[in-house]
Amino acid sequence: MLGVGVIGTGMIGQDHIRRMATVLSGVRVTAVTDVDAAVAARAAARIGAAVHGTGEDVIADPAVDAVVVTSWGPTHEQYVLAAIAAGKPVFCEKPLATTQQACLRIVEAETAYGARLVQVGYMRRYDGAYRALKRALDDGAIGTPLMMHCAHRNPSVPAWYERESMITDTAVHEIDMVRWMFGQEITAVQVLIPRRSGNGGALQDPLLLLLQTADGVLVDVEISVNIRYGYDIRGEIVGEHGTAALGELSPVTVRSAGRISTPVPADWRERFIGAYDVEFQEWIDSVAGGGRPAGPSAWDGYAAAVVSDAGVAALRTGSKVEVALTRKPSLYSKTEVAA
Amino acid sequence: MLGVGVIGTGMIGQDHIRRMATVLSGVRVTAVTDVDAAVAARAAARIGAAVHGTGEDVIADPAVDAVVVTSWGPTHEQYVLAAIAAGKPVFCEKPLATTQQACLRIVEAETAYGARLVQVGYMRRYDGAYRALKRALDDGAIGTPLMMHCAHRNPSVPAWYERESMITDTAVHEIDMVRWMFGQEITAVQVLIPRRSGNGGALQDPLLLLLQTADGVLVDVEISVNIRYGYDIRGEIVGEHGTAALGELSPVTVRSAGRISTPVPADWRERFIGAYDVEFQEWIDSVAGGGRPAGPSAWDGYAAAVVSDAGVAALRTGSKVEVALTRKPSLYSKTEVAA
Amino acid sequence: MLGVGVIGTGMIGQDHIRRMATVLSGVRVTAVTDVDAAVAARAAARIGAAVHGTGEDVIADPAVDAVVVTSWGPTHEQYVLAAIAAGKPVFCEKPLATTQQACLRIVEAETAYGARLVQVGYMRRYDGAYRALKRALDDGAIGTPLMMHCAHRNPSVPAWYERESMITDTAVHEIDMVRWMFGQEITAVQVLIPRRSGNGGALQDPLLLLLQTADGVLVDVEISVNIRYGYDIRGEIVGEHGTAALGELSPVTVRSAGRISTPVPADWRERFIGAYDVEFQEWIDSVAGGGRPAGPSAWDGYAAAVVSDAGVAALRTGSKVEVALTRKPSLYSKTEVAA
Amino acid sequence: MLGVGVIGTGMIGQDHIRRMATVLSGVRVTAVTDVDAAVAARAAARIGAAVHGTGEDVIADPAVDAVVVTSWGPTHEQYVLAAIAAGKPVFCEKPLATTQQACLRIVEAETAYGARLVQVGYMRRYDGAYRALKRALDDGAIGTPLMMHCAHRNPSVPAWYERESMITDTAVHEIDMVRWMFGQEITAVQVLIPRRSGNGGALQDPLLLLLQTADGVLVDVEISVNIRYGYDIRGEIVGEHGTAALGELSPVTVRSAGRISTPVPADWRERFIGAYDVEFQEWIDSVAGGGRPAGPSAWDGYAAAVVSDAGVAALRTGSKVEVALTRKPSLYSKTEVAA
Repeated sequence: MLGVGVIGTGMIGQDHIRRMATVLSGVRVTAVTDVDAAVAARAAARIGAAVHGTGEDVIADPAVDAVVVTSWGPTHEQYVLAAIAAGKPVFCEKPLATTQQACLRIVEAETAYGARLVQVGYMRRYDGAYRALKRALDDGAIGTPLMMHCAHRNPSVPAWYERESMITDTAVHEIDMVRWMFGQEITAVQVLIPRRSGNGGALQDPLLLLLQTADGVLVDVEISVNIRYGYDIRGEIVGEHGTAALGELSPVTVRSAGRISTPVPADWRERFIGAYDVEFQEWIDSVAGGGRPAGPSAWDGYAAAVVSDAGVAALRTGSKVEVALTRKPSLYSKTEVAA
Repeated sequence: MLGVGVIGTGMIGQDHIRRMATVLSGVRVTAVTDVDAAVAARAAARIGAAVHGTGEDVIADPAVDAVVVTSWGPTHEQYVLAAIAAGKPVFCEKPLATTQQACLRIVEAETAYGARLVQVGYMRRYDGAYRALKRALDDGAIGTPLMMHCAHRNPSVPAWYERESMITDTAVHEIDMVRWMFGQEITAVQVLIPRRSGNGGALQDPLLLLLQTADGVLVDVEISVNIRYGYDIRGEIVGEHGTAALGELSPVTVRSAGRISTPVPADWRERFIGAYDVEFQEWIDSVAGGGRPAGPSAWDGYAAAVVSDAGVAALRTGSKVEVALTRKPSLYSKTEVAA
Repeated sequence: MLGVGVIGTGMIGQDHIRRMATVLSGVRVTAVTDVDAAVAARAAARIGAAVHGTGEDVIADPAVDAVVVTSWGPTHEQYVLAAIAAGKPVFCEKPLATTQQACLRIVEAETAYGARLVQVGYMRRYDGAYRALKRALDDGAIGTPLMMHCAHRNPSVPAWYERESMITDTAVHEIDMVRWMFGQEITAVQVLIPRRSGNGGALQDPLLLLLQTADGVLVDVEISVNIRYGYDIRGEIVGEHGTAALGELSPVTVRSAGRISTPVPADWRERFIGAYDVEFQEWIDSVAGGGRPAGPSAWDGYAAAVVSDAGVAALRTGSKVEVALTRKPSLYSKTEVAA
Repeated sequence: MLGVGVIGTGMIGQDHIRRMATVLSGVRVTAVTDVDAAVAARAAARIGAAVHGTGEDVIADPAVDAVVVTSWGPTHEQYVLAAIAAGKPVFCEKPLATTQQACLRIVEAETAYGARLVQVGYMRRYDGAYRALKRALDDGAIGTPLMMHCAHRNPSVPAWYERESMITDTAVHEIDMVRWMFGQEITAVQVLIPRRSGNGGALQDPLLLLLQTADGVLVDVEISVNIRYGYDIRGEIVGEHGTAALGELSPVTVRSAGRISTPVPADWRERFIGAYDVEFQEWIDSVAGGGRPAGPSAWDGYAAAVVSDAGVAALRTGSKVEVALTRKPSLYSKTEVAA
């Protein structure tokens, strides 16, 4: 039974605690902390976990075998580095850190440690439809990949959401997915500006993001974040002799009032709840008994940050921006996620 | 943490042990037994459970809070009755017992006990697509239901499979599903004989089974068990002003070689693995801490047996056969499964 | 340029006149008549055709090379026999005649004439989706056919529609389609009664019609004629190792308000307008220059009438009714419609 | 009965002759010519038309009420101008002329004539799926349009096909479609270069073409011309609160060998044959009796040429290229094609 300490018991932290306490196998949450002590205390009480004053105390707790970081983004670096220093596996929600420099410091600390401890919360790699898509690609069903068409559609966004969030919060999922899907780094980014939706106020919504991989695959990503009708994630890979796309996945088809219709998920929770469960179970299974995480690595977190920065620059300048990564440490050289 | 004892560690018993040990939350398998002691010992060793010589010993074990019966069908009655006698919750794989008389004895024993202890393993009630279908129906999306069209297709069947198995092993899932979907007993059964498939040897395959509910809904079920192309479960409810059907559920769509195609599940495991997980987690959650099971009841097991017997009679005689149930005890009068 | 005389210029007659005058090639309507002379005169004036007092005069007109009968059903026999007597090709809207005896008299007259002159207006054989379905079947894509599932759904029916119309007006299209699809006569008919829709008043709606072919294919047909949501025609053939179904055929897919939806046709005109065009063009092409019609024959009209009568008897009695056809004249022995 | 003269009896000319002779209504081909007199003579013989030595002779023939130009592209200008000079309606297959200057000369000639005579053969405006898509857009089903995603996929291309053909022969259909769909001129063009398919030899295949309309709608067009699996045309418009896409249009769905599949058209003929029929019938109906054509105008042909030239420049330079049209004459100011 893996003992997990959770740093940050806000909405997403509480959801992961619920998941570990009532859905998954082989895990128990043994300690928690939060910047708001009362919130932490309530979360701990529900599951009989210890409450600590700081993230470092959580990490140091002997009942904590592995750490989950779901605190405010700017504190991620500090806790992930502390977990590495303690030699404990750490699952950090995205982003790994809020700057590419901070991500690089984590990569360097983990490299110095000499083995993988860090996993970043890019959950699409665990979604059944994306995995089936990757299997179809890897099985050669469509030949060598040449292009990919994506759409990332949100019905609406919260008040804090701003211009750059289109890249850093929304499209960052496609950035990680593309790197994983094709096993290639992204080398250039461009952002095109369509007519603006009236639903988003002053926000430039939608955008068309263009990503190019090291071997030339061109990926276009429609980012629409006030499209009202639902949460809709789509992707189609164009290969040399065919294409493969995410399926439609509707549990029910209704014929009424002149139409044949299927429901669209209302939000990302509904669409990806299963992926979160798989992501956490696989992480628990991999690190239990002293094993190494197999999911998105610190390098993946770093690369996503660099590409995301390039995307923001592309958005601001209107120009194509090249992506410059540091040399990849050999620690990250093997394929890290099985299909 | 619910302690579960498993009686019968054959293929399905082992699969449920794996599920409880590595997938689900709040449960641990504490004791097992099997008619083959060596098989039981191996299953126990993998998870650190006790091994007992008899099912009765498993039931009596103080570390066993609840019982799972996955032994040979003809032994189900004995173990379920023993669990009721011990006042312990018992999950029994279908069929509840091999005759309707045995099922009735279980109903009577549970009624005498005065509270629900028994749950029967009809897992379709836990499938996401069937639940979405029932929600659409209950929400009034299509009006009052009038008919339902079903297909139950297997690519092939094992050597032991015989004429009556079409009803008792295959269509019995639709029998339970129809009762649950419409909240009505089935009152009459008829079986029609189409042209025979060459794939099934002497077996009369396919069949068209017709079920009528107490309020007149007419359900037709195609049963095809050697159809080669895959495992395919379909259902469409026809209401007064529309229809609702199970969705297509394909994770990926491939365009190649002149066709747009989606995969069909290879077998029932692939199609319903998620439903088994949900079924067991909900059962564990319901009986943990002394609670009552909310899934398919002993009455449901009895009713399925009676309808199934009527189906076999209809198959043999070619005539429509009325279904005669005993009076339903009040213990089973409330709705037992939420959508 | 084929000169066509139209007997009966009601709604359907006028629609065929419009079709021949403004859509199709190689044809011109040269003479018309109607029981209402004023209606006939108006129809004739629009296209410059002659108006005659009787159907017999139309048939006798030297400018009439071929005859279209779209008069009131009870008059069909008279005009079709007159056309045969004149040796002129005659396209008769369904039904060929209102009794099987009348249909048989036409068969006998045509057989005595010694060559095909008569075509009956069963337009589904000309529908692109049905033709693609038949091609898939004939190509062996699914193996030997064993069953077929059909649905014939109307949003509503006119005031004159009565109990027997469910068979004689609605399901008669499936009766002809099944004979054509499988190249087999229908040998038995049964009708089952589901719960009654509140939308149809006293009408028993829906019905489940069961047809059996000479080689054992079992066809179930849902007939729902007040289902409100649209006009929906479906069919799936179950073969030994797969199935083939009519496609979905939606020109547009809309994502809005939480749903992905496609439109359903509002009525049979929208669904089958293309089939009518193909039906008439192929008929014109076949009979121009003295050729023989290749579409549904007088025999097909007779067989549909006999099966339809059996369906009405089955509906009235609740029993399975055998179909007894006379011996098929050799004139009709060859396959009459290419895929 | 409209008398039509056909200039150019190559493959496409012969197909239009077949269409007018055997499919459509109210038309007859009265005269033909071709650079190869023997080919012209054979085409004429089949339908009883006159053969002339030159296109000018065809135009001058009193039995010719309207002209169809299907000769070699470089000769289009000459014949269209001659038809305008003769005051006869002329249907010119795309392109209207091979340079934008030549197109402009036609626009000027027609403007000087003072009424529309010219229609250009952009047939997608007559396709049922595109029309349904435009109706959905115009009905407000998805709100104001912001983006459109298109794919134009060919299984293979002929030997003469070259780099620029990707724009001038293939994407030119999307160029016209976008102008028609949104009722806006295209103001800028960009071409992006994905990884190259091995199926196309030295050809840069695929491309991603980006079109921007005057009101800011951004359209991306995947152009893949050696994708083997079939001919596939797709389009999805992204609006403020939903999207609308071309439907899937499959006549049949087959379940076999582990897959649910629908066929893809083999080539453009199969996909658009119906659109050609509608296009010609509407043209015939519009110009018969001295009427004016309502389809794609000389201005549309000119605009497509200018945008196409910009696309070629964008392909060569890798830069975004602005589109500069001359001032639009008032002759073309009204909407020219009904949905």
